[in-house]
Amino acid sequence: MRARSFFISTLKEAPADADVVSQQYMIRAGMIKKLAAGVYTYMPMGLRVIRKIEGIIREEMNRAGAVELLMPIVQPAELWMETGRWEKYGPELLRIKDRHDRDFVIQPTSEEVVTDVARQEIKSWRQLPVNFWHIQTKFRDERRPRFGVMRGREFTMKDAYSFDRDEAGAGVSYQKMYDAYQRIFSRIGLLFRAVRADTGAIGGSRSHEFQVIANAGEDVIAYCPDSDYAANIELAEAQSVLGGRGEAKETLEKRATPGQEKCELVSEYLGIDFLKCIKSVVLAADRTNEKGEPLPAKIVLVLLRADHELNEVKAGHIPELKDGFRFATDEEILAAFGSKPGYLGPIGAREDVAIYADLTAADMTDFCCGANEEGYHYTGANFGRDLPEPVKMDLRNVVEGDASPDGKGTLKLQRGIEVGHVFFLGTRYSEPMQATFLDENGKPQPIQMGCYGIGVTRVAGAAIEQCHDDKGIIWPESIAPFEVVICPMNYSKSEEVKKTADALYESLKAEGVDVILDDRDMRPGVMFADWELIGVPHRIVIGDRGLKNGEVEYADRRNLAEKTMVKTEEAVAFVKSRLKKFAA
Amino acid sequence: MRARSFFISTLKEAPADADVVSQQYMIRAGMIKKLAAGVYTYMPMGLRVIRKIEGIIREEMNRAGAVELLMPIVQPAELWMETGRWEKYGPELLRIKDRHDRDFVIQPTSEEVVTDVARQEIKSWRQLPVNFWHIQTKFRDERRPRFGVMRGREFTMKDAYSFDRDEAGAGVSYQKMYDAYQRIFSRIGLLFRAVRADTGAIGGSRSHEFQVIANAGEDVIAYCPDSDYAANIELAEAQSVLGGRGEAKETLEKRATPGQEKCELVSEYLGIDFLKCIKSVVLAADRTNEKGEPLPAKIVLVLLRADHELNEVKAGHIPELKDGFRFATDEEILAAFGSKPGYLGPIGAREDVAIYADLTAADMTDFCCGANEEGYHYTGANFGRDLPEPVKMDLRNVVEGDASPDGKGTLKLQRGIEVGHVFFLGTRYSEPMQATFLDENGKPQPIQMGCYGIGVTRVAGAAIEQCHDDKGIIWPESIAPFEVVICPMNYSKSEEVKKTADALYESLKAEGVDVILDDRDMRPGVMFADWELIGVPHRIVIGDRGLKNGEVEYADRRNLAEKTMVKTEEAVAFVKSRLKKFAA
Repeated sequence: MRARSFFISTLKEAPADADVVSQQYMIRAGMIKKLAAGVYTYMPMGLRVIRKIEGIIREEMNRAGAVELLMPIVQPAELWMETGRWEKYGPELLRIKDRHDRDFVIQPTSEEVVTDVARQEIKSWRQLPVNFWHIQTKFRDERRPRFGVMRGREFTMKDAYSFDRDEAGAGVSYQKMYDAYQRIFSRIGLLFRAVRADTGAIGGSRSHEFQVIANAGEDVIAYCPDSDYAANIELAEAQSVLGGRGEAKETLEKRATPGQEKCELVSEYLGIDFLKCIKSVVLAADRTNEKGEPLPAKIVLVLLRADHELNEVKAGHIPELKDGFRFATDEEILAAFGSKPGYLGPIGAREDVAIYADLTAADMTDFCCGANEEGYHYTGANFGRDLPEPVKMDLRNVVEGDASPDGKGTLKLQRGIEVGHVFFLGTRYSEPMQATFLDENGKPQPIQMGCYGIGVTRVAGAAIEQCHDDKGIIWPESIAPFEVVICPMNYSKSEEVKKTADALYESLKAEGVDVILDDRDMRPGVMFADWELIGVPHRIVIGDRGLKNGEVEYADRRNLAEKTMVKTEEAVAFVKSRLKKFAA
Repeated sequence: MRARSFFISTLKEAPADADVVSQQYMIRAGMIKKLAAGVYTYMPMGLRVIRKIEGIIREEMNRAGAVELLMPIVQPAELWMETGRWEKYGPELLRIKDRHDRDFVIQPTSEEVVTDVARQEIKSWRQLPVNFWHIQTKFRDERRPRFGVMRGREFTMKDAYSFDRDEAGAGVSYQKMYDAYQRIFSRIGLLFRAVRADTGAIGGSRSHEFQVIANAGEDVIAYCPDSDYAANIELAEAQSVLGGRGEAKETLEKRATPGQEKCELVSEYLGIDFLKCIKSVVLAADRTNEKGEPLPAKIVLVLLRADHELNEVKAGHIPELKDGFRFATDEEILAAFGSKPGYLGPIGAREDVAIYADLTAADMTDFCCGANEEGYHYTGANFGRDLPEPVKMDLRNVVEGDASPDGKGTLKLQRGIEVGHVFFLGTRYSEPMQATFLDENGKPQPIQMGCYGIGVTRVAGAAIEQCHDDKGIIWPESIAPFEVVICPMNYSKSEEVKKTADALYESLKAEGVDVILDDRDMRPGVMFADWELIGVPHRIVIGDRGLKNGEVEYADRRNLAEKTMVKTEEAVAFVKSRLKKFAA
């Protein structure tokens, strides 16, 4: 490509509403252009990146034996009603009425449509397994779109759906996709982790997220440097840091703690160890009677050691909360505990309050907790003596230094950006939609499904979050808009420069290098700044000074300070030697 | 590809609502699957065709110097309001409200968004010309979707938009796209015509349609076999078939024609030449006063020779009708002419009725027309003597045998399917949206635009309409889902057959042939029927009988009766010799 035949448009400043580096650089580099909140045009420079990501995904999906099709963006509501997602999905599902007033959605994902295809197409066990996939535009009407292409509303997703006879088969299909994802992100060249993850609203029972490591990530990953354990913090198992309960030594004492409404303050005020304090978190699950009329909410008290934090995903596994929960209101708290927040505890709560203690809290002795009376806390409290034994559950987030659940060391935390997700769905969709096949005995069986997504456009943003410096983007070679840029000095004025640049350009192109020749005739500083911002990984500068010695200058975007002079006639071989794709 | 690793699903019968051959075959061949009215999933077999069409388009767009980007599907209403299309587009424009109650549309086309990109990006004449294009999903909420993928609601379109400094430059850009379209449809291998076309609601002043010739086409094309003249019948210029007006010989006479309400009946009843009769067509344009309150409609009388038909596009050029028109109601007719329909004519109409005569009608002498009195017609009527000279305009459809407007012969008619369209837009979008550039003198000038569309998914349907027989589809090689199918007999039972088939498959793949090996082990009749329906252009059958002589059997889908036995070791070379893509 020659720059003049392409469209390059860079900006000195990012718009004020660009809230992360990737968004700022993509806008400044002329890769995306905002059309509406969370809706972007991919400009020519940005589209090249997206197409390269899609290309790698396509190759690996095909290699894994998945079959590409293309499902529509506009989907009839009836299918979404069959699975109950029409009601459950909430306002992120963009609903439309067509001219005949029929309900449709713009797909945020395609489980319903692909299951509809399967129930029509798959009749016999002989047709299984099969994995249908597509790359298609998705829309999720985020309340607050942000982070550029990473949490936009319109985006491109690769979604695949596997269909199997039984759970064992589905496990094989799952593993194939897991392996394909490992290859995809390895080929893209990003530092990533496959982490165990919560299955969330989509249902199913087994799930991994593929997280690109980046400080700007929204997710926190717990991993063990001494093993291959890695999990989203939502899921990472937290054990008791006490490893069992000691003996009670103190006696229960009610002490005045006027105005001390937080564990930090109480421990300081009373002069007791912060780690001897228990934090009370009050949750509420709304209920209705058989007629659908509201009943008072079920109140659940969660006990955590003062330094630990509630894990809301784990709290969702509390039986009373499994259909959804919220934090209790001050009014509900007063009714259930007889005190305002800040002085709450498990002793003397209303009888119908369900009490759950995190594993560490449950191992505590002689602890301090609220006395359910404004201005008072208990000290020296002990389970089984001063109050009943609580129900024990893992309810907190892991912290750095926690034991790894596999027993092989301690956990560390890092932030990540979720770019891929593999799910085992089981019959979550096939049962309500009656997608069955006839087994060897001619009996109908529900199809076992899995679903596998990659946020194509999000990968571009995540790559930038991981790979950039203060000059701009540093693309991994595999998804860079161009692999090599040739920057000629005085292209239109120096015959020699022009001849050398044109010849090198043609030779590299002939070798299959994705090269751009900057024939825009700009001042060197401006030209270099453009390409450093755009992030092309390899740069060749051609100028009269170097050509006097028969040389051109090579620099790697990752280390621009180190420049290498290369004999003009060796330039093609040299560039190829620097390109990963030519490595044996 | 091996058939077992792919997904093949054929049907014996098409669903009852499939109304054209292409739709029936695409459904039966497992290429598309209906999700909702006018909304289809492209199954794996169909998607391969679409991707090949897209590939050819992409190569030729790049060759023509156009730059690919990707504009969003969901577009904010504000832009559509700027150009007035929010109001004008009608119910085909699918309008949506997001969760914040803001108005959006699902794009039926991208003029607004691309002009918005241009007005932000293009500052100087130095950046022009440029041509931005994308392949993207479109949605048009057709009242009655039909003809499968040819008039669906959700479809894939390639749309390109050129930006130039002046009309001369825009003409060059237009020609480049015209030439690219010629190459695209030639490469696809379809019989097509580039025809002059009406510019319709999209605006602009110069336009060609690319029509694939097929009997099932919705459009009628007038062309001259002796020259390169070709135009959509909507636009094809009709001259006077009389070539001037003769002398009046008869006198005006009012004659009773009781119950004779059509020219055919009147001419028979009165015993006069049918071609001496004039047909009166009454049109009405609704009007409002300055406050927007309805006024009585403006009534226009169009006079046509009895054998000619009104061309509504041309009627739209009548000054009184340029903002839209309809046929007049019986009530309006009675008020304007004093008679019910069937006896209308230009003599004695209400004074405010505007009268326009088609060029042939205007050349008529001694003609017969309604007397504006029930049961009566005039004969021997003459313009200028019995009534004022009418305003003359080309208002009729051409018919076979009409003189070609270029004077080089006579016209023929054939039906076509519009698959591409090139438009010169001028400043239709750039002016209301204030997309300007600074010229050499630093003065802002509106950008001159063109737009260029290809209905990607429609091309697939049109190709089938043109190329099929009673067994199924006959794909042009360039867009066939596979170029070659290998059909082994007893693949799993005959060692020799399997060995030969596998080897030939691998060899053809290595040569870059897009080949599928049918390893499904089906009965020959069923297997052949599948591939004849699917329409793969070249077939190799491998069976024990042929292998005894060291031979395999080749057949061309276009002529299955003619089978050629080929030595096994020559099979690769033979197949390559039959593939157009290997032709020098």
